Amino acid sequence: MKLIPVILCGGSGSRLWPISREHHPKPFLRLDDNQSLLQKAFIRAASLPGVEEILTITNRELFFKTQDDYVEVNSQNLATSFILEPFGRNTAAAITAAALKIASAYTPDTQLLILAADHIITNQAAFEQAVESARELAATGRLVALGTQPTAPETGYGYIEAKDNQVLRFIEKPSKETAEHYISSGHFYWNTGIFCFSANTFIEEAKKHCPDVLNTVNTCLTHSRHSNGKHFIQIELDKKHFMAVPDISIDYAVMERSSNVAVVPCDIGWRDIGSWPAIESLENKDAHGNTTSGEVILHSVKNSYIRSNTKGRVIGVVGMEDVFIVDTPDALLVAKRSYAQDVKNIYIDLKNRGHETHKFHRTVTRPWGFYTVLEKGDGFNIKQILVKPKCSLSLQMHHHRSEHWIVVHGMAQVTRSDEEFLVATNESTYISAGQKHRLTNPGVIDLILIEIQSGEYLGEDDIVRFEDNYGRC
Amino acid sequence: MKLIPVILCGGSGSRLWPISREHHPKPFLRLDDNQSLLQKAFIRAASLPGVEEILTITNRELFFKTQDDYVEVNSQNLATSFILEPFGRNTAAAITAAALKIASAYTPDTQLLILAADHIITNQAAFEQAVESARELAATGRLVALGTQPTAPETGYGYIEAKDNQVLRFIEKPSKETAEHYISSGHFYWNTGIFCFSANTFIEEAKKHCPDVLNTVNTCLTHSRHSNGKHFIQIELDKKHFMAVPDISIDYAVMERSSNVAVVPCDIGWRDIGSWPAIESLENKDAHGNTTSGEVILHSVKNSYIRSNTKGRVIGVVGMEDVFIVDTPDALLVAKRSYAQDVKNIYIDLKNRGHETHKFHRTVTRPWGFYTVLEKGDGFNIKQILVKPKCSLSLQMHHHRSEHWIVVHGMAQVTRSDEEFLVATNESTYISAGQKHRLTNPGVIDLILIEIQSGEYLGEDDIVRFEDNYGRC
Repeated sequence: MKLIPVILCGGSGSRLWPISREHHPKPFLRLDDNQSLLQKAFIRAASLPGVEEILTITNRELFFKTQDDYVEVNSQNLATSFILEPFGRNTAAAITAAALKIASAYTPDTQLLILAADHIITNQAAFEQAVESARELAATGRLVALGTQPTAPETGYGYIEAKDNQVLRFIEKPSKETAEHYISSGHFYWNTGIFCFSANTFIEEAKKHCPDVLNTVNTCLTHSRHSNGKHFIQIELDKKHFMAVPDISIDYAVMERSSNVAVVPCDIGWRDIGSWPAIESLENKDAHGNTTSGEVILHSVKNSYIRSNTKGRVIGVVGMEDVFIVDTPDALLVAKRSYAQDVKNIYIDLKNRGHETHKFHRTVTRPWGFYTVLEKGDGFNIKQILVKPKCSLSLQMHHHRSEHWIVVHGMAQVTRSDEEFLVATNESTYISAGQKHRLTNPGVIDLILIEIQSGEYLGEDDIVRFEDNYGRC
Repeated sequence: MKLIPVILCGGSGSRLWPISREHHPKPFLRLDDNQSLLQKAFIRAASLPGVEEILTITNRELFFKTQDDYVEVNSQNLATSFILEPFGRNTAAAITAAALKIASAYTPDTQLLILAADHIITNQAAFEQAVESARELAATGRLVALGTQPTAPETGYGYIEAKDNQVLRFIEKPSKETAEHYISSGHFYWNTGIFCFSANTFIEEAKKHCPDVLNTVNTCLTHSRHSNGKHFIQIELDKKHFMAVPDISIDYAVMERSSNVAVVPCDIGWRDIGSWPAIESLENKDAHGNTTSGEVILHSVKNSYIRSNTKGRVIGVVGMEDVFIVDTPDALLVAKRSYAQDVKNIYIDLKNRGHETHKFHRTVTRPWGFYTVLEKGDGFNIKQILVKPKCSLSLQMHHHRSEHWIVVHGMAQVTRSDEEFLVATNESTYISAGQKHRLTNPGVIDLILIEIQSGEYLGEDDIVRFEDNYGRC
C-alpha cells in the first residue's frame, strides 16, 4: 500500500516573533545546525521506508521558500507535490484537500501520514516503528493518532485519553492541575498531531462528521488550477471557493467526533516548537545556563537566551536572569521567561497597526533570490539584491521611480527598452522611470547588486509586470 | 574683572554605552529636548553676566563636533576658544593649561569658572547667584568650590566637608553608610566639580602643590601650536610633551592639598549624569513608571527605560521590570537597574577586543558633515554621505578601491583628475582607484549621496590626502 507523507507548512508563529513573521513562519526557523524545522520534517518523512513522494500544503506566498528549503535537503530527489492555499484555513481544510486529491490521483486506499512542519522528533527509529504500527491499523480502516507519553504537565499541548489503543476523547490544552492528573493516571497521551489513515477512510469519516468541509473543499478543488505531472500533484486552490470552507481544525472536525480513532502510543522524542523556551531547550547552554548566538557580551547574566543574527551588531547584557533577547535587523524582543507565551501580544499589536515587521523581514525572499532593504530615505530607497544563477526578475516597469544598479558581485544581464547588455562587477547602469526592464543572472555564481531607487513614490506596488518566470504577472 | 568660563568636554562615558563611545562621549548625548549636555553647559556659561568668551578644553578628535554643537546654540555669537588635547590626561592638566594660557593672554587676575560638560543644573538663577558669590571670594585670592546640599546618600559623588565656608577636606566616593552619616551631619556638600579662581591664584597654588603638573604643562604649551586671534585662544597641545604631564585630577593635585579653598553652598539643582538611571531621572515616565523613546511596544512592563534611536527598528518588551534597554544601529544594551554601574564592563570588554563599537557609532561625524556605513559586504562597502552646504571633503586618492557615487539629494561638485563637473540629484559618477578626486557641496541645501566602494581592500586608511580644509593632510 502506498504511503504519502503530507507536510502542513504554515502558521503565523506569533510566539516566535521577531524571527517568525507572517511571510516567514515557524517552519522556516533555523536551529543551531542550520536546518529549518521544515527541512527536519522533510528529512523525517523522506527517511520512511517506501516513500516516493511528499505532498506539502502551504500558503502560495511560501511556495518558493518551501521549494528552496527542500532543494537543500532532498538528496534522494523525491517527487514533491504541493497544494497551495491562498490563505490559512486551519487543518481540516488542508487535510481534506490532500485526502480528496490523493484518492483521485492514486488509489483510494493510499495512506496519508499527516506531519506538521514545526515539530521536533529526536528518535527517528522509534518514529519509523510508530508509523509502521499506525499503517497497520490504518489498513484496517481506522483513523490513527500518534500519542506520546507525557513527561511534564504541559499546558500548551493537547491530550488524548485512550483505553487499549481506542481513543476515548481528545482534550484541548488543559490547566496545570488537570495536566498533572493526566500524567498520574497513565491513560493520557500528548496529541502529537501526527495522524495516519487511508484516503477513503478519511473521506468516509468526513462525510459523517464534517460534510460541509468535505463539500466545500471538493467544490474548491473543482475550481482550482491543477498542474498534474506524471508523479506529482500541484494545485493552486481557488481563493473565492476556499473562503467558503469552514475554518476548523482536524481535531475538532473529525477526530473528536469519530468513534473510529486508534492511538499508537510511542516514545519518539516529540516536541512542539511553540515558543522561545522550546527553542532554547534544543540548544546548548553554557555553565551559567545561557544560550547565545551572534556577537554577545554578558556580565552577571544567568539562565538567559540571547540570539543575534544581525551581522555587524553587538549585544551587551548586564545583570539579567531568565530573559529572552532575540535581535533581528528591524525588530528586537526582550521578554521574561515566565511571559514567553505573551510574545504573541506584541505580534498581534504590530499586526493591528499594519506594521511591516509582523509580516516581512528586512530581507525578503523571492523565487529568483532575495533583497534586503538597506535604507529608506526621503525620496530614495537602497536595496541589496541577490539573483541566483540562471534566474530572472520579471520584465517590469515603474511609473514613478528610476533605478541605479551597481553590480558588486557576479554578472548582470540587463534588458532596458530595446537594448540588452551585460553589466560586470564594479560597473553600473541606470533605468529611467517608464522604461521596461529586466534583470537576469546569466552566470554560474550569485549576482549581487545595489539598487538605488529614486523618485517621489517608492512603494512596492508601483510595478507593472509584463512577463514573469514564476507566474506573478 | 574678566570671567572666562572653561568647559571641560571629554571622558569616555563608558557607563552610558552604547550611546556614548570613545569618539562620541557623554557631553554629546542628547536629551529629550534634543539639546546635548554640552550645549546645556554652553548655554549655562553664556548666560552668565559679562561673559564674552568661552574656553573649551577637549580632545582634538572632538573639535569639529564640539564646534557644531556650539553653532546650534551660540545665538549671542560669543567668542569660542579651544585648547585641544591629543588624548585625555585628567583634569589637573587641562585646568592648568587653561590657567596658564588665560594668565598670559589676558591679565593674571582674570577669573576662570571651571564647568563640566556632562552635568545638569536645573536652577539657572541660583547658579548665577552662586557664581557671583564665588567670584567675590575668588577676588580675595581663594580657590572656590561650589557645593550643593546632598539630598540622598549618593555613593557615586565626591563630598566636601566644610566649616563656615572653609573647606576642611575633599572626600572621594564614600560607602552608603558614610554617605548617610554625611547627610545627617549637615557639614557636608556634594562636590559639583565647579570651581572658580583667578588664574594667578591657581598658578600659585599649583606651584606649591603640584609643581610637576605646572612645569610639564608649561613646557607643553611652549611646544604647542598656537593660533591666537584677537579675542580668542586656540592651541593644539603637543603630543610628546603632553605625555609627560602627570595623569591626575584637579581635586587630588590641588584642591585636597590646599588650605586656601572656600566652598559656596548652593541649591542649583545639580546632578552629574553618570549612568543610565541618571538619564532616566531627567525624562518623563508613564503611569507604569516606564520611559520610552522610538518605536516601542510594551506588554506587562514596569519601571523600565527603553530608548531606541534607530530609524526603522521596533522593540517589543514583555514581562520586564527595572530594566534599561538602549538600542543603537550597531549595538544594544540590556541591563538590570541594580547593575547600571556595571555597564562600563561591557565597554571595557569591547575596548580590550579592539571592537569598533567602543569607539565609533555607525554614523561618523566629520568636519564637512557625516557618513553612515549601510553595509559591509565581501569586496564592497556602502555608505551614505551627507555634505553640508559649502563644505568639501579633502582632495584625496585611494590605491585599492573605486567608488560609485549616486546623488539622492542636493547637488555635488566633483573633481576627478583634471575634470571638474556637477552631479545633480538622481545622477551618478564613478571614481577609479588611483584617481585624485574631491567632493564638494556647492549648494545651499545638504548634499546626500550613496557611495559604493568596490575593491579588494576597503580600510579607511587607504587614503592619500592632498589638500584639506580642516588641516588633516
